[in-house]
Amino acid sequence: MEKIRRKMGKFLKLISLDEALDRIRNTAWDTPKKESIHVASSLGRISAGDVTAKSNFPPWNRSLVDGFAVNLSDCKSASDTNPVTLETNGVVEAGRSRFDKYIEGKCTEIYTGGIVPDSYDAVIMAEDCIIEEGNITITSVPKQWANIERAGDDLRGGDMILAESSVIKPWNITALVSSGVETVDVFEKIRVGVISTGNELFSDAEGKIPNTTQNLIVNYLNRGFIEARAAGIAHDDSREIRDMINVALKENHCVVVTGGTSLGGKDEVPEAMSEISNVVFGGAMIRPGRTMTLYESDGKPVFSVSGVPVPSMLSFDLFFEEYVRTVTGLKEYRKTLTATLSSNVSNKAGYAGIYRVNLISGEDGEVAEVIKTHGSGSISSMLKSDGTLVIPGTVEGLEAGEHVKVKLFGDFY
Amino acid sequence: MEKIRRKMGKFLKLISLDEALDRIRNTAWDTPKKESIHVASSLGRISAGDVTAKSNFPPWNRSLVDGFAVNLSDCKSASDTNPVTLETNGVVEAGRSRFDKYIEGKCTEIYTGGIVPDSYDAVIMAEDCIIEEGNITITSVPKQWANIERAGDDLRGGDMILAESSVIKPWNITALVSSGVETVDVFEKIRVGVISTGNELFSDAEGKIPNTTQNLIVNYLNRGFIEARAAGIAHDDSREIRDMINVALKENHCVVVTGGTSLGGKDEVPEAMSEISNVVFGGAMIRPGRTMTLYESDGKPVFSVSGVPVPSMLSFDLFFEEYVRTVTGLKEYRKTLTATLSSNVSNKAGYAGIYRVNLISGEDGEVAEVIKTHGSGSISSMLKSDGTLVIPGTVEGLEAGEHVKVKLFGDFY
Repeated sequence: MEKIRRKMGKFLKLISLDEALDRIRNTAWDTPKKESIHVASSLGRISAGDVTAKSNFPPWNRSLVDGFAVNLSDCKSASDTNPVTLETNGVVEAGRSRFDKYIEGKCTEIYTGGIVPDSYDAVIMAEDCIIEEGNITITSVPKQWANIERAGDDLRGGDMILAESSVIKPWNITALVSSGVETVDVFEKIRVGVISTGNELFSDAEGKIPNTTQNLIVNYLNRGFIEARAAGIAHDDSREIRDMINVALKENHCVVVTGGTSLGGKDEVPEAMSEISNVVFGGAMIRPGRTMTLYESDGKPVFSVSGVPVPSMLSFDLFFEEYVRTVTGLKEYRKTLTATLSSNVSNKAGYAGIYRVNLISGEDGEVAEVIKTHGSGSISSMLKSDGTLVIPGTVEGLEAGEHVKVKLFGDFY
Repeated sequence: MEKIRRKMGKFLKLISLDEALDRIRNTAWDTPKKESIHVASSLGRISAGDVTAKSNFPPWNRSLVDGFAVNLSDCKSASDTNPVTLETNGVVEAGRSRFDKYIEGKCTEIYTGGIVPDSYDAVIMAEDCIIEEGNITITSVPKQWANIERAGDDLRGGDMILAESSVIKPWNITALVSSGVETVDVFEKIRVGVISTGNELFSDAEGKIPNTTQNLIVNYLNRGFIEARAAGIAHDDSREIRDMINVALKENHCVVVTGGTSLGGKDEVPEAMSEISNVVFGGAMIRPGRTMTLYESDGKPVFSVSGVPVPSMLSFDLFFEEYVRTVTGLKEYRKTLTATLSSNVSNKAGYAGIYRVNLISGEDGEVAEVIKTHGSGSISSMLKSDGTLVIPGTVEGLEAGEHVKVKLFGDFY
């Protein structure tokens, strides 16, 4: 009973979500190292600097169609009543020849992707002319540069093709390679070690439960720029926990510890952390997840979350996002969109509420249906969730029809 | 010139998008094998059958808070004017002990996650009672089952926790493990081999261009249930191409060949495929991508797409999606949402148009801004795209303010 009273005092020290996020922004975290890697290996990583195109793309004028390259001066008078016939003097196919032997009054057969010889300034589609052996006949004057993609039309040397602190997508790689960029500066992957604690996770426990929290957090976090992994399971023993955290801190940028703390009973994690860290904050006014504590150990964050899978994942991700933004400058951590609430939601005064949301693609837009949960651990509530809605502690409720921001769950959904 | 005329005939055989999708649905494709794997390895895979919970979760009544487990019959008269004091007779912590020694008139200290002994039917939060050494005092009667998550509250044996043909998310795994399911039937990963063709991709080519298409398609496709990989680069030589396709067909469910075909010049891929396959369709009324041809070779699809990266990726994915749906029954291939068009869009009559869309999270909902492209290959247009909008060939245009369905680009964005 001593413990429960001791911890009750702690309950009063909960800070607001905004204050907690502020403290994360204002802590001097170690920054993940920047590394220069080959563009082809950079998918999903966070860029560590602006990148601009080194050269034009396409590097030369190229044909967008199959047809005939012409010089407009040879077509000037073409009309229905005055058809113009041009003799062909050769052929250009992509990658096959850089044919350029323009002769006044002649045209060149050309295929999609072929380099348009410098003497030509339009390509007439094959469908738009009468083709006879050795020559073509046209009945209208093409527009200048018709069916030609000009050098640099797509990407021009100096164009911004990858902004600092953004996630590298497949097409960023295409743009980088196409414009002559071979290596790119990125942040190393953010390594996250997830430790679970709890006697109930061991096979000799009375009331053993499966260790789902560790797996859930690892799976939820893993993305191109994050490398999350299980980093052990400890008993409710502060020394065992501390040893495991120390190992995980050596190998990772960030450590998450599940269980081993509660408002009442368990305090093995606080005990384990007391000598090796400072408390950034000990609990925040959020639901679920108010007991989450953030420690700083030699510039690295250690997140202590509850052992209950869903609430610990949801609340942890809110703070981890802020940490990632702070150390990498990343702007969009998960895609956020605007939706319309389907029904009233009441929110406990003072607490920022994290709500699971089912998105319905309606006739007029996205409809957000807040999923009712009973019990903080509701796994079933996740099964039809598409994302989360956070209602600030200053707002006691929202009404049906209000517009809200929903943060989509990551990769697969 | 013979070639360009021969191919012009083919142009007339383009079928509608709907017809092309119908043909994909109606072709007898080989189905990816089903395999039974451990739940922990199933992230991102497509389930090959409904899965229901084997057992209840939680398996027993457990406390949602730190506090005191009571039997309501001992609290009946509690009120402000008639406070009730209960002696504590022990403690329950998660995984530590399954204490159950109920004595009438006594309560048990309990911590979050602790198993509530069968004799108790409510837990009073520590904050809601006066705690003194050895006993607690309450001034109101708790509701029955207050602060208790009852056995099976979250998942009940027999509940559907994973529907057939859906992508397995992190929380599906949590639900499966929590309810006693250890293995799950999934489709093997759909293996896609991507072959690039074109003399212009080789270092000795005049007008060499980097092979970005292969990398783009591989990166774009790769997800939990797809394993895409580069399967070679061939010259514009039908025999070389056919040999490469034959190898790729042995190793993959599906093959994509970029380049080597156009309305006019190149016909190495048709030549390579002529002896080893049937044509499912040869060109469809879509823009971009009308030259895409789909072959069927011994039950496997071979997609022949242009060599231009962005249009080939966008058009290919439309048909590949239908193939995946057909062979696995998958419902949501990529997330689709409703947005409001920011400005008028005109669509070429007869052609289903694939438009790149930038989504803006507005005050009232998502706004879809169609990105203008010049030249079919526009890489730059992708850099700010969030997804695609397909306008059917029967629709000549959409007006600002209309609601449209936008299919979001996958994983990272």
